[in-house]
Amino acid sequence: MGKRLIVIGGVAAGMSAAAKAKRVSRDMEVVVYEKSAYISYAACGMPYLVAGDIPDYRDLLARTPEQMAKQGVEVHVRHEVIAIDPETHTVTVRDLEKGREFAHRYDKLVIATGAGAVRPVVPGLDLEGVFLLRSMEDGLALQRFISEHAPQRAVILGGGYVGVEMAETFRRLGLDVNMVIRSGEVMREALDEDVRMLVADELARQGVKVVRGEPIAFEGEGRIEAIVTEGERYPCDVALLGVGVRSEVPLAQAAGVALGKSGAIATDAHMRTNLPDVYAAGDCAEAFHRVIGEPAYIPLGSTANKQGRVAGENAAGGEETFDGVVGTMVVRVFDLAVARTGLTEAQAREMGCTVRAPLIRAMNRAHYFPGATPIYVKLVVDDVTGRLLGGQIVGQDGVAKRIDVLATALHHQLAVTDLQRLDLSYAPPFAPVWDPILVAANVAGK
Amino acid sequence: MGKRLIVIGGVAAGMSAAAKAKRVSRDMEVVVYEKSAYISYAACGMPYLVAGDIPDYRDLLARTPEQMAKQGVEVHVRHEVIAIDPETHTVTVRDLEKGREFAHRYDKLVIATGAGAVRPVVPGLDLEGVFLLRSMEDGLALQRFISEHAPQRAVILGGGYVGVEMAETFRRLGLDVNMVIRSGEVMREALDEDVRMLVADELARQGVKVVRGEPIAFEGEGRIEAIVTEGERYPCDVALLGVGVRSEVPLAQAAGVALGKSGAIATDAHMRTNLPDVYAAGDCAEAFHRVIGEPAYIPLGSTANKQGRVAGENAAGGEETFDGVVGTMVVRVFDLAVARTGLTEAQAREMGCTVRAPLIRAMNRAHYFPGATPIYVKLVVDDVTGRLLGGQIVGQDGVAKRIDVLATALHHQLAVTDLQRLDLSYAPPFAPVWDPILVAANVAGK
Repeated sequence: MGKRLIVIGGVAAGMSAAAKAKRVSRDMEVVVYEKSAYISYAACGMPYLVAGDIPDYRDLLARTPEQMAKQGVEVHVRHEVIAIDPETHTVTVRDLEKGREFAHRYDKLVIATGAGAVRPVVPGLDLEGVFLLRSMEDGLALQRFISEHAPQRAVILGGGYVGVEMAETFRRLGLDVNMVIRSGEVMREALDEDVRMLVADELARQGVKVVRGEPIAFEGEGRIEAIVTEGERYPCDVALLGVGVRSEVPLAQAAGVALGKSGAIATDAHMRTNLPDVYAAGDCAEAFHRVIGEPAYIPLGSTANKQGRVAGENAAGGEETFDGVVGTMVVRVFDLAVARTGLTEAQAREMGCTVRAPLIRAMNRAHYFPGATPIYVKLVVDDVTGRLLGGQIVGQDGVAKRIDVLATALHHQLAVTDLQRLDLSYAPPFAPVWDPILVAANVAGK
Repeated sequence: MGKRLIVIGGVAAGMSAAAKAKRVSRDMEVVVYEKSAYISYAACGMPYLVAGDIPDYRDLLARTPEQMAKQGVEVHVRHEVIAIDPETHTVTVRDLEKGREFAHRYDKLVIATGAGAVRPVVPGLDLEGVFLLRSMEDGLALQRFISEHAPQRAVILGGGYVGVEMAETFRRLGLDVNMVIRSGEVMREALDEDVRMLVADELARQGVKVVRGEPIAFEGEGRIEAIVTEGERYPCDVALLGVGVRSEVPLAQAAGVALGKSGAIATDAHMRTNLPDVYAAGDCAEAFHRVIGEPAYIPLGSTANKQGRVAGENAAGGEETFDGVVGTMVVRVFDLAVARTGLTEAQAREMGCTVRAPLIRAMNRAHYFPGATPIYVKLVVDDVTGRLLGGQIVGQDGVAKRIDVLATALHHQLAVTDLQRLDLSYAPPFAPVWDPILVAANVAGK
């Protein structure tokens, strides 16, 4: 038998690392320990599972332990790694079913412990009807609660991606929805104010109430009845915590794994940590941000998969690097797609850049073509160098893959004048003769 | 008054040049002569006008002569320039309404005479019911003919963009449709065989018959009754010629304007011709093809607009260059979007490149997301350098703007390994966690 790779965590990054390592080195022993009962689940799909779009939760499972076994990867679910000893190259594993603990020696280790939801420190958090949406178990529990208790009123704490996605889910299930957000604004970090307004308008149009507030208590007799803020009380039958996520690093940290400024695990481009033979990937780790020029913490499934693959390849003796991210994200907010990449205008200014950042409105198709809908494009351009720093796009159609043109441009440090010159596709059903990206580049390039 | 710019042709390139020149130099006199009765019409929209998607043909007119007059641009429709004298800087203009001719002196001249449909040399071409689809008049005449004569059977000659778009239009109007193509294959130049098959399947599924054949006669008593090929006879009540377009260059050529290898007008990056003070832009001119590394003839409205703008800027004393094209195109074929950019595998091999060019099938959204549909991506990669040479994408949704990621990559000469590393947007409603482009790049990058 060859060397042994142990992977801690069996979701996006962990499973990608395990599968890749086995493909690269057939005689490597690959063992995955996953704390929950599920591996390779599509956490991003859970709002749509709860909404009833996805008929069976098993559709969200990309791989089962049995399938992995056939590929020669040994997967143990309900097994939590509780300690790493880098000196002896050993992990301590707790079998959560049987309660027993054991040690297991690794030659290479991939830490893919993911991220956990931030929990506000308020009384009543453990009332029935209060949910997170991180693990498969979270999603299934929320789904079960809704079908058993038919809640009428939801409060969502936080205005990030999960918050807006769940606002849609709850509305489609017929619930009243209040979003209680500390800043009073959805997607505050991800988008600039002029673009956030478009999202806020859509939420209002769909009957979602967005209010400023911070919870001081969750009230109820056993089950949630209201969320109380300074001066307000929001009655509800179900509450969702979406105030953000935090990398799961205590295990790594206790073993001496160095963290970055963001608090997530620091790695090099090979996804190596500071400890010999120890890699990290996915939502527990930082990613190099190519626009900022330093590591950032932007946990996303797409990044986790890429990082996991690189970690797995290198752990198995290959040679691969992770190129970093540019901060691309897209989310559906009811009828809108909302996308961003790079820096927002606010971020760029905070970093000391002088920027121009016009927001333009165009149509997603030829203006005369039936069903043409507005699309808004904001470009953030360095006023000194002309370099593109970021972009935000909002519209009903043709948004997600238009942001990818900007992501490609950012990845390769193009200037706004480069954007103007792109030979983008044109046909009346798909784009105006001047694509909205070109229109935006022409305006921002002046 | 300042200098005088004369623009020959008032559609995409010509009108862009005129408008841009006036914006750059307010005191320049800008005069446009347009042979037809319309300016700035969206020729690409005509299949959808005929189909009834666009209620009023005036929706296809982006600008009227009156609007241009308000911007200070003098537009004369139904005026044909019949000669250019570069020595005296004079054009001879024929007023097609009044039949008179006159000379007009220019300081700068932009030739934007466009392209005309290729007409097969066969008897019966002037029968009633035989149509081209180039000018606004063509579209209106076809529309009128259909509403007056309610044809039941159409024959389309040629399998290019206009051919497949009009196949859809005719089918949606309830006609039987035969496409008679010399090679027997639609989009033969634009796509590789493995991708063409997907398009052929869609046409068959939609009841369009595609046959190999070359017409030897158009038959009918006054009005078209059949198209006859070697060995076959296709009865029809309406016929559409879509066998290609040819740059309209006789006027320029007679004046000594040099043509390129393609037979269209040769220009430099400033859109200058070989004659002093004479520019050319749009469907009458070549464009530098960045992947091939030399000029090519790919007439498209999007390119015409860009070239026109550059010609106008420079004619008005500005300094701008046209960066060239990479061969991006998209067309709707019933329920499919069909897109391409760069070189096909066949083109690349013809040029002597050793390539790998796998075709992959993925889903346009997360596999578990309702409404996910297949998307096919073919990448053409130089086997020696790893550089991306082209791509083709076919699918029901998410095609047009995905090709633009490849177009951006081609414009900046990225390698397939660069593609693999892009931070593309991900959310279940819009893309799988590995976007089809990344899947294709991973396969082609091996």
